[in-house]
Amino acid sequence: MNVFGEMLIGSAALRGTNGAIRAVNPATGETMEPAFGGATPADLERACALAWQAFDTFRDLPLAERAGFLEAIAANILALGDELVERCVGESGLPRARVEGERGRTVGQLRMFAALVRSGDFLDARIDPAQPDRKPLPRVDLRMRNIGLGPVAVFGASNFPLAFSVAGGDTAAALAAGCPVIVKAHSAHPGTSELVGRAVRQAVADCGMPEGTFSLLYDSGREIGQGLVCDRRIKAVGFTGSRAGGTALMRLAAARDEPIPVYAEMSSINPVLLFPAALANRAAAIGSAFAGSLVLGAGQFCTNPGLVLAVDGPDLDRFIAAAAVALADSPAATMLTPGIRLSYEAGIAAFAAHPAVRIEAHGRAGTPQQARATLFSTTAAALRSHPALRDEIFGAASLVVRCPDLATMRELVELLDGQLTAALHIDTADHAEARRFLPALERRVGRILVNGFGTGVEVGHAMVHGGPYPATSDGRSTSVGSAAIFRFLRPVSYQDFPEQLLPEALKPGNPLALVRRTDGVLDAAA
Amino acid sequence: MNVFGEMLIGSAALRGTNGAIRAVNPATGETMEPAFGGATPADLERACALAWQAFDTFRDLPLAERAGFLEAIAANILALGDELVERCVGESGLPRARVEGERGRTVGQLRMFAALVRSGDFLDARIDPAQPDRKPLPRVDLRMRNIGLGPVAVFGASNFPLAFSVAGGDTAAALAAGCPVIVKAHSAHPGTSELVGRAVRQAVADCGMPEGTFSLLYDSGREIGQGLVCDRRIKAVGFTGSRAGGTALMRLAAARDEPIPVYAEMSSINPVLLFPAALANRAAAIGSAFAGSLVLGAGQFCTNPGLVLAVDGPDLDRFIAAAAVALADSPAATMLTPGIRLSYEAGIAAFAAHPAVRIEAHGRAGTPQQARATLFSTTAAALRSHPALRDEIFGAASLVVRCPDLATMRELVELLDGQLTAALHIDTADHAEARRFLPALERRVGRILVNGFGTGVEVGHAMVHGGPYPATSDGRSTSVGSAAIFRFLRPVSYQDFPEQLLPEALKPGNPLALVRRTDGVLDAAA
Repeated sequence: MNVFGEMLIGSAALRGTNGAIRAVNPATGETMEPAFGGATPADLERACALAWQAFDTFRDLPLAERAGFLEAIAANILALGDELVERCVGESGLPRARVEGERGRTVGQLRMFAALVRSGDFLDARIDPAQPDRKPLPRVDLRMRNIGLGPVAVFGASNFPLAFSVAGGDTAAALAAGCPVIVKAHSAHPGTSELVGRAVRQAVADCGMPEGTFSLLYDSGREIGQGLVCDRRIKAVGFTGSRAGGTALMRLAAARDEPIPVYAEMSSINPVLLFPAALANRAAAIGSAFAGSLVLGAGQFCTNPGLVLAVDGPDLDRFIAAAAVALADSPAATMLTPGIRLSYEAGIAAFAAHPAVRIEAHGRAGTPQQARATLFSTTAAALRSHPALRDEIFGAASLVVRCPDLATMRELVELLDGQLTAALHIDTADHAEARRFLPALERRVGRILVNGFGTGVEVGHAMVHGGPYPATSDGRSTSVGSAAIFRFLRPVSYQDFPEQLLPEALKPGNPLALVRRTDGVLDAAA
Repeated sequence: MNVFGEMLIGSAALRGTNGAIRAVNPATGETMEPAFGGATPADLERACALAWQAFDTFRDLPLAERAGFLEAIAANILALGDELVERCVGESGLPRARVEGERGRTVGQLRMFAALVRSGDFLDARIDPAQPDRKPLPRVDLRMRNIGLGPVAVFGASNFPLAFSVAGGDTAAALAAGCPVIVKAHSAHPGTSELVGRAVRQAVADCGMPEGTFSLLYDSGREIGQGLVCDRRIKAVGFTGSRAGGTALMRLAAARDEPIPVYAEMSSINPVLLFPAALANRAAAIGSAFAGSLVLGAGQFCTNPGLVLAVDGPDLDRFIAAAAVALADSPAATMLTPGIRLSYEAGIAAFAAHPAVRIEAHGRAGTPQQARATLFSTTAAALRSHPALRDEIFGAASLVVRCPDLATMRELVELLDGQLTAALHIDTADHAEARRFLPALERRVGRILVNGFGTGVEVGHAMVHGGPYPATSDGRSTSVGSAAIFRFLRPVSYQDFPEQLLPEALKPGNPLALVRRTDGVLDAAA
């Protein structure tokens, strides 16, 4: 058993003295051992000081070493074996297969960033050579590369105890960018956090990374998390959670003497748009696939399909009927925390009590610790006049909007806030109509998909897991995929540098064998 | 004479009715004709509505048309001929040659962005092809490209009436990104703004761009500029000016229902670091080159060298002496506005009155409308304990800090705020010592240069004209050079799209002949 209730500050593992945090097994309601001590302001100071000290050394290591470090973290996480899976299942209520899948994704993500670091592509190395004979003035030699922003604060997410937490996407991207990371563990899974944190700490030691490259803190209140965002040595923040939590961090970061970027992924209802031909041809199949996406992971995905827009009529009724049949078969599920379940139930109750909302279907009932899926319907007019119906209910709830026609559907899309995803269900005969929706979707959505659902986020190079506010705090960025590294980078130019002082990435002869840009044009691959 | 005192709202030219703005010729103090009417909130509303309407059409035009539009703006600016140059000289007090040079730079910048748009490089097109046979789950087809953020508000700068104003860097970058632009003209050069605005408006009409792609507003107070930043249809802000102005816009943008990015370039003292061997070998030459950079354009460059750090001793005395000789020969110069001159004089008076500051040299005195250069010196201890000595005096003022040793110089660098540039003067014998300064400089500077000065900013691909706060509001970005286009872009993913609905940039067969990434790897150039 390697869970000691200890936080990790650089190379030290120690018990916090600022209150205590205990995990609760959401399936049983039982408190889990051990207790985790919360960090004090002095602990926070120590973690920030170490991260700051580590930054220059860490960011300047050869790319291969940084890549090897990421791979060592991945290997160490796998080496935790069943202990990690069991602790995570216990703390999250997630099924074992889901946790194993999430571990695979976390490890794959670390390896993807390792490959990206090895390639050096993210450096965006650029060279505008000198032109000593240019008239009227000679041109200087100018070279550019990206460097890390500085130490990054990462807030673990409740709904992905592995892939968006201690060694999740933001941590992997920040380390890949050359930024030390301080994680504020999510209180729902402190044991999972400690296990993964120890895997990272071991990699720091084994790979000879500077102490302070990584620290892990628990917070028994909000003081440490807020202090972390406000610390002058922290240069960016990654967060996945509620809109209230994300906007609070945005305000803190904007009010600093030196404002810093906050990458908060907050809320999204991920509209599903059903088009007439697709609905005529495949209403039942789409309805049952929709129900499958809705109940996946108890609906606790940022990309859960919370809103369905379609033209009212018998085809939509068939969609709803098929979804209802599928839902009636879907078991109730334990949610991540008792608090999340209570929130979900409050959201369901509010929709159910709404005069313009009808309950169309339920999932199976379960134990008092479990939540069941709910499908609602309403009218276009109600969605237009009641903004609360466009708010996210975190969990397996969705609202079908019966629209009089496609023009109304388009108007409703223009009412929606920024979203992580939107899904179009179309057949060939719908293409012309679907095309008319694309501009409005592009303006407010990070990922648009056809004949599928947003759940299941590929970790690749073309992934955008992001979107305009309030889906995220910053629609210019993604939290999943290799492009996430750009969150934590900034460019620096070097003018007329002697070769000896240039960073390796920019030296004549291209010693790192990078793909670089000369006068704006990509060199042939080395 | 094509200056009518009119603002440009889409295709309409009209006289504003909300107060009046008049240019003042800073060389004579005389008010210039005509008066310019300030925009009303209704004018602002109209400009924002048109920009919003134009956005989807404009961003979807073929790249060649967008590029042609940028080139037409450039041609139209040149076609204004002497009228533009004379009006600009009159409104700014800048010498004719400087204005002509700035016009060349403005036109070159538009053409550079045109070439960038034609290449399609900025789209960052990425394709992760489907893997239907992948186990355990098939992989979807995922494609990504960048699109424009939406309409952009650009605030004209006082110190670059052409290159950072109506058709300056931010406008060119935003249009290149596919974003309509609304410019709030700087009140110091309304006539120059109108002339350039008409050149842009003509290009909109001639190239068949949608109305609303461009508007130009005057603001007789602050209401219109603030209203512009707060309008829900504006999705980003570009600003060059004071720290007070920039931070006010940052606060407004952060307080919106939907916070938006602000790219504000604000203040920088651009430290110059003189190293021992360089000083021993070339103190006099460096001193006189320094004086030349200091007085360039009456010191009214963001990259003006406002701070010099060096080890005290006879070599530094020689540097100061040479600078003093050069300054004694440098004529007083008209500053951009009477207000800027008064601010400069107040800054000079405050430094002069500081007990730890000594006046080392002055430029020549001039008319009451003119300002003369001033060189101060102080001690390392004073710089450390008096933060006001690290503030920018906008104009030809600089402060030499006599350091006891190089270790102290390094400590002082760590005290400095974010900067646009830092200049190292080094000989080969200084390389080892200079290397020890680089980490601290990289952390706080956008462009580090060797044996030169920050003034003279190349418009290229490897340029970073930016830097950590408070040099700019967002150190992840540059305001000069082709990378500035990324300010105004965000990525969108398309999953499992049928070919007919994909954007051209992402279609099979690569119809735009882009360099794209497949599974993260750059394709061979098409």
